[in-house]
Amino acid sequence: MTDTAEILQLARARGVMIATAESCTGGLIAGRLTDVAGSSDVVDRGFVTYSNAAKIEMLGIRPETLEAHGAVSEEIAAEMAQGALARSRAGIAVAVTGIAGPGGSEHKPEGRVCFGIGDARGCRTETVEFGPLGRAQVRAATVAHALDLLKSALS
Amino acid sequence: MTDTAEILQLARARGVMIATAESCTGGLIAGRLTDVAGSSDVVDRGFVTYSNAAKIEMLGIRPETLEAHGAVSEEIAAEMAQGALARSRAGIAVAVTGIAGPGGSEHKPEGRVCFGIGDARGCRTETVEFGPLGRAQVRAATVAHALDLLKSALS
Repeated sequence: MTDTAEILQLARARGVMIATAESCTGGLIAGRLTDVAGSSDVVDRGFVTYSNAAKIEMLGIRPETLEAHGAVSEEIAAEMAQGALARSRAGIAVAVTGIAGPGGSEHKPEGRVCFGIGDARGCRTETVEFGPLGRAQVRAATVAHALDLLKSALS
Repeated sequence: MTDTAEILQLARARGVMIATAESCTGGLIAGRLTDVAGSSDVVDRGFVTYSNAAKIEMLGIRPETLEAHGAVSEEIAAEMAQGALARSRAGIAVAVTGIAGPGGSEHKPEGRVCFGIGDARGCRTETVEFGPLGRAQVRAATVAHALDLLKSALS
């Protein structure tokens, strides 16, 4: 059983649907969750909020938070996860925002990714420094870590 | 230059941003468009509307259209593309809805995918029968065709 199928099974057993809110991964987490046939009963929707305007308009991210902390911050990851929960039928949401590179931005290093997980228990965030692995590797590592977070939260 | 980079260049040259509305591909089209560094200036956002509720709530799909034609139809592909344009800052939107399989559903065969492209000229739709290639191959072929449609529309 792949990790993805396991996550879907866990969500199904708990009777919760999943939503995603993705910036640097651009839809790849939702893409992985829907790799598995029959995912439609537990994958509700995904928000690919690549631009700041999209984050504000699709997820209700506060411009003040963007201004104060930048798009790549745990504060924004938390607002993304909460926004995805509030704007979906999902009971759990995973959010990612990071610097896929190449190169840093916002005075933050390539490979820094902030994660948010929101569910009935509230919202937890964390930052992982994947380092300057290159764009494709940072994105792949981000997808894998987001799936791990979903799995832990559902276990 | 990859196809994706070429699409982004074409969009940049025209001064339009891109939005995606994805059902069966679950975010993989947006994922491909953001493979390329610097995509953030032309990739606005993506709507991963896996459930019918998501199609209605995120894109304004009419329940009557779903009822009359089913989720996998050119009518829904058109409404998805139009909804994505109306709910984004993009000047061009590509929408896909299909039967990735395995197996058919809605009395429709595995591998049938309906595409919509919306821009300032209006909305065009088409249906492609990829056949029973298996879920991963149908999804990969759908992503490739959606990118081709974007490229043609921008050329």
